[in-house]
Amino acid sequence: MSMKLFLENNRGILLAYDQGLEHGPTDFNDRNVDPAFIMELAASAKFHGVVFQKGLAEKYYNGRVPLVLKVNGKTSLVKGEPLARQNCSVERAHEIGAKAIGYTIYVGSAHEGIMLEEFGRIQEEAHKLGMAAIAWIYPRGEAIKNDTAPEIVAYAARTGLELGADAVKIKYTGDVESFRWAVKSAGKAKVFMSSGPKAPSEVDFLRQVRGVLDAGATGLAVGRNVWQNSDPSRMARVLRRLVIEDRSVEEALKV
Amino acid sequence: MSMKLFLENNRGILLAYDQGLEHGPTDFNDRNVDPAFIMELAASAKFHGVVFQKGLAEKYYNGRVPLVLKVNGKTSLVKGEPLARQNCSVERAHEIGAKAIGYTIYVGSAHEGIMLEEFGRIQEEAHKLGMAAIAWIYPRGEAIKNDTAPEIVAYAARTGLELGADAVKIKYTGDVESFRWAVKSAGKAKVFMSSGPKAPSEVDFLRQVRGVLDAGATGLAVGRNVWQNSDPSRMARVLRRLVIEDRSVEEALKV
Amino acid sequence: MSMKLFLENNRGILLAYDQGLEHGPTDFNDRNVDPAFIMELAASAKFHGVVFQKGLAEKYYNGRVPLVLKVNGKTSLVKGEPLARQNCSVERAHEIGAKAIGYTIYVGSAHEGIMLEEFGRIQEEAHKLGMAAIAWIYPRGEAIKNDTAPEIVAYAARTGLELGADAVKIKYTGDVESFRWAVKSAGKAKVFMSSGPKAPSEVDFLRQVRGVLDAGATGLAVGRNVWQNSDPSRMARVLRRLVIEDRSVEEALKV
Amino acid sequence: MSMKLFLENNRGILLAYDQGLEHGPTDFNDRNVDPAFIMELAASAKFHGVVFQKGLAEKYYNGRVPLVLKVNGKTSLVKGEPLARQNCSVERAHEIGAKAIGYTIYVGSAHEGIMLEEFGRIQEEAHKLGMAAIAWIYPRGEAIKNDTAPEIVAYAARTGLELGADAVKIKYTGDVESFRWAVKSAGKAKVFMSSGPKAPSEVDFLRQVRGVLDAGATGLAVGRNVWQNSDPSRMARVLRRLVIEDRSVEEALKV
Amino acid sequence: MSMKLFLENNRGILLAYDQGLEHGPTDFNDRNVDPAFIMELAASAKFHGVVFQKGLAEKYYNGRVPLVLKVNGKTSLVKGEPLARQNCSVERAHEIGAKAIGYTIYVGSAHEGIMLEEFGRIQEEAHKLGMAAIAWIYPRGEAIKNDTAPEIVAYAARTGLELGADAVKIKYTGDVESFRWAVKSAGKAKVFMSSGPKAPSEVDFLRQVRGVLDAGATGLAVGRNVWQNSDPSRMARVLRRLVIEDRSVEEALKV
Repeated sequence: MSMKLFLENNRGILLAYDQGLEHGPTDFNDRNVDPAFIMELAASAKFHGVVFQKGLAEKYYNGRVPLVLKVNGKTSLVKGEPLARQNCSVERAHEIGAKAIGYTIYVGSAHEGIMLEEFGRIQEEAHKLGMAAIAWIYPRGEAIKNDTAPEIVAYAARTGLELGADAVKIKYTGDVESFRWAVKSAGKAKVFMSSGPKAPSEVDFLRQVRGVLDAGATGLAVGRNVWQNSDPSRMARVLRRLVIEDRSVEEALKV
Repeated sequence: MSMKLFLENNRGILLAYDQGLEHGPTDFNDRNVDPAFIMELAASAKFHGVVFQKGLAEKYYNGRVPLVLKVNGKTSLVKGEPLARQNCSVERAHEIGAKAIGYTIYVGSAHEGIMLEEFGRIQEEAHKLGMAAIAWIYPRGEAIKNDTAPEIVAYAARTGLELGADAVKIKYTGDVESFRWAVKSAGKAKVFMSSGPKAPSEVDFLRQVRGVLDAGATGLAVGRNVWQNSDPSRMARVLRRLVIEDRSVEEALKV
Repeated sequence: MSMKLFLENNRGILLAYDQGLEHGPTDFNDRNVDPAFIMELAASAKFHGVVFQKGLAEKYYNGRVPLVLKVNGKTSLVKGEPLARQNCSVERAHEIGAKAIGYTIYVGSAHEGIMLEEFGRIQEEAHKLGMAAIAWIYPRGEAIKNDTAPEIVAYAARTGLELGADAVKIKYTGDVESFRWAVKSAGKAKVFMSSGPKAPSEVDFLRQVRGVLDAGATGLAVGRNVWQNSDPSRMARVLRRLVIEDRSVEEALKV
Repeated sequence: MSMKLFLENNRGILLAYDQGLEHGPTDFNDRNVDPAFIMELAASAKFHGVVFQKGLAEKYYNGRVPLVLKVNGKTSLVKGEPLARQNCSVERAHEIGAKAIGYTIYVGSAHEGIMLEEFGRIQEEAHKLGMAAIAWIYPRGEAIKNDTAPEIVAYAARTGLELGADAVKIKYTGDVESFRWAVKSAGKAKVFMSSGPKAPSEVDFLRQVRGVLDAGATGLAVGRNVWQNSDPSRMARVLRRLVIEDRSVEEALKV
Repeated sequence: MSMKLFLENNRGILLAYDQGLEHGPTDFNDRNVDPAFIMELAASAKFHGVVFQKGLAEKYYNGRVPLVLKVNGKTSLVKGEPLARQNCSVERAHEIGAKAIGYTIYVGSAHEGIMLEEFGRIQEEAHKLGMAAIAWIYPRGEAIKNDTAPEIVAYAARTGLELGADAVKIKYTGDVESFRWAVKSAGKAKVFMSSGPKAPSEVDFLRQVRGVLDAGATGLAVGRNVWQNSDPSRMARVLRRLVIEDRSVEEALKV
């Protein structure tokens, strides 16, 4: 039930690769469309965890990096109030070797209640089997005007704590001060930044990560900013210097 | 199945701290955002119970005060007819050490039926495990024009009794006479006032509590009027004098 | 599985007291708001059954009169197509000592299907535990223009028979002839009139009951016309003379 | 799992009597409103099966004719897209002595999916207990313009075959040729005509039945055209001559 | 859990015959309306699998060809956002002798979540019983403008991989290059083309199949283009030459 397995110096970097279901292969190129490439990258670049849906885990996971199994998801083809239902049992996640389950909650959605209830059950099942429960908390739906507004991000963080998540994955607010409040709101739940689409430049991205760390977060879950990078291994090394060795952006870039 | 554990002189004061999920951290400041602060306050100020969601209970509850575990909830981000689904199993609440479960029913909501059914099941599960069942009964939704109208508050109280709640948490009507009818309507179910947002002044708040007690209620569940107070411990002492020692507002304030 | 426990001379009078949930305490006065008063009345006036929701049964039922436990219900605060979901398990009803379960089906409601299914399951569970299943059948919803029209009342009665109810509680059509058809449509299912709101005068009410009996019904479930009466015990005696002793309205009134 | 019990010379006539739930007692007169009359008629006139809802079966079925228990149904009071949910468990149908379960599927309804799923489960449960599964397949809902159009009737028949029904009950298309296609589409599933409301004349009705048989069907499920007849037993004898002895309409009428 | 049983030279041709439920018998003629004809064709022409709904499998399947049991489906009579619910248990599919289950997911439908969840459960149940799980993935609903657009087809393919399908059945994009991307997106999940309605000419159809194979797919699921052909056995031989012997369209046609 703890996140320790995913941490080094109390920090952690998760390699996220659930975009195939969430966005479709439009996020991929000829190389990173292959889950084997991602699995190899996760292992060789010493990520602290790799995030797969069940299908990828069953066909490509090799045990060299702790596994976070995303047990719900939806395609981006569906419109209307977002809802992502469980598509993998917690028991199956455990058999595959997952050390944590991941679950997305769209707070603010008209279907929020379904996801709160489902996460509640899944968290208990995961803990019984010794796995951590990580909540992807995304404020979304008609009622949400700005999902990176400081009070919205802090609310997302707190929701994870209240529901019993061991860690929450949330978006960055854009500045250290307001994100510190989100981290504080998350209490003993670890905070990981959701790094989102590829940033305009490496420095832009790294400054975000630095801000998140300065605000007290544990780390980040990163996908496109690594595997869409022309040299993913180098970017992974930069991130390790920044996050695990706690260096400045400038020093981190000297790899 | 009884509320005795939560009572002293047949009165009780519960420290409510489920606002993190219901309203977000916007209710909090740097101090009270920390559940450990609340847990300490509950214990040192001798509250008769502390109300947590599962996540807070798992990470912060230390057994020094009887625990009421709120097993449902929703964020305030969702619009439309209110619905709060179960996010913690009764069995898990029991493992954590809860002596009562709390459950919110939005009577009047288009989704009322789901919550009546869910509470019915939860009440039976809780009693089987020796825990009390406390119903937060809030008339809400399109059909409810004024949720503190005397006949609405009395209806809320009665609904709890009919459904088998050991105690109901309801809003104050604003005057002793009409609240007495609500208390009478609740029969053998204990009545706790929901104290709501911080009152304009301490005296205003305490007069409400006094009215509630004069009407025959058992006590109150209080959150913001204590932990948003500049001196929460003092306010807790004032409340004990008012509620447990049954003093007047003026005497209670002489702490 | 039989109604015999509730009958005397093949007739029966049930004291209905589920109005607290269905209408709220607005139906009550200082005396009859107390379930203990109703329990005492049911016993001392020798009613053939008393109808409670789970909460009242758990806190006030004393075994002196056979218990009908209403296992579903809704508040009158909700608008739209009516739906009442199960809020008490059949097993729990049995533990409390119920000899029959009661269940309301709103035929004609857009949610009719949920209630037909739920009653179907509950009827089987009740029979397995040796309890009778009584169906409150109320045609209601957008599609129902007049719920006391003869063909509608007969349809309600027949629905109960088809679904396996041991007894049906239906409204009076207003005349003996048409109600006789409803009773015939109910076949071997016993028919109880739902007596509804307090009638303009005692005689009006008793003539309705007399009509119902002349039409072949088994009896009635009565609430407000007894406990809103200035002398409930006397009214109960009048009803016994009318229903059990099968006298005329005029003779029945000579108590 | 076979229909053999319901057949004689590979033909069968089922006496349908689920109209009390589906249409209400408006279909009945003083005699046929009584299920005992129908049970007696079924036995004395040697029908090959009698169709009851659970309530009638429990109170009136005497074992003299094989029982088809209709396990779902709805009232005609509900408007909107049709949905009939299960109101009798398959296990209970078996205990009562049913040799087949009947289930209505409204194909084309917005709720079609619920009924396909429910029938799928029920068919498996029935087969496990050695009972046949008969599907009443009625194209209905906004999307259906003409439920006796040849291609619609053939689709209904085929749906039953695909879903695993042992027999399908469908409407007549009006001519032998097009109904032959429906029968062919049903493959090894037996086809029974749903005879519907009382026909303008006996000959009209019998010509329909003759057409259905000439098209290769197994028989019919008949209700109103028998028990609304002034001499139901004679009509039953006529039908036996037509269906089981395979005579012409004219010869069949010479009873 | 593997597709090997369905492959020859790592290629496979499945004979699809679930059109009876999906489209109705309008797709059939006097010969191919008979499932026995299809079963015989599948066996004599050495297809690598035959696709049936439960009802056909129970009544016509003879074990001479591996069985893919389609466990969900819907009629084409229903309008609105598509939804196909499970109508056959995985356990029953296994008893009947299926070597794989088939399940349709309408991605982009407002009901997508129900099908993702249901497929997730079914896939696990199938694997536990040693059966493969094949996903028919059809982008459909208001939100889908063009279901053969390259990015949509690739998304469909990827969705199957992410969800744990052993094989996906998807539509052809119309050109080799874009379909190659779909195949790549499917990773280790086998790709079968859904061949759809009868093509204008044999050559047109075969060129599509050739394109699909050149793009790296495993084969196709074919129905109407075989059994609506005037000589289904010959067409089956042509397909074997094209797909299994990997010949050109022109050579394949020299049978």
